[in-house]
Amino acid sequence: MITIYVNVQPKANILDPQGKTIHHALQNLGFQSIQEIRIGKRIKIIMEAASVKEATTKAQEMCEKLLINPLIEEYTLEVAS
Amino acid sequence: MITIYVNVQPKANILDPQGKTIHHALQNLGFQSIQEIRIGKRIKIIMEAASVKEATTKAQEMCEKLLINPLIEEYTLEVAS
Repeated sequence: MITIYVNVQPKANILDPQGKTIHHALQNLGFQSIQEIRIGKRIKIIMEAASVKEATTKAQEMCEKLLINPLIEEYTLEVAS
Repeated sequence: MITIYVNVQPKANILDPQGKTIHHALQNLGFQSIQEIRIGKRIKIIMEAASVKEATTKAQEMCEKLLINPLIEEYTLEVAS
């Protein structure tokens, strides 16, 4: 079993209202030193694969076919150690 | 500026209906080798801090006060390189 994390983030030029809301809430709690907060997703995929390379290729296919909206999101893959 | 990621995951014993739905959708697309999918959050915090240690401590406070629900979620902190 190989575990791959897909780290998804809103693209830099895309508004992130959820991040803004949390930023304000944290400011109200006294955290004044924050410059920005962005909320992304972290998708954990546990799968059978013969090699890390095969698992990474599959995960990339999953991102392209379903997991990611390339208009507003960007992603990186991370193999769990 | 220091960037810290908070990686949030549903605890192991907590149901994750969103993950199950995506798992089924990927199976329908032909990805048969997946064992499990869990959907978490990845919160990017950019903040001013004198040191990585100070930033990490602040981020941990934010998690305890607002970002994390310890009943159903667990988290790790990751300092961006």
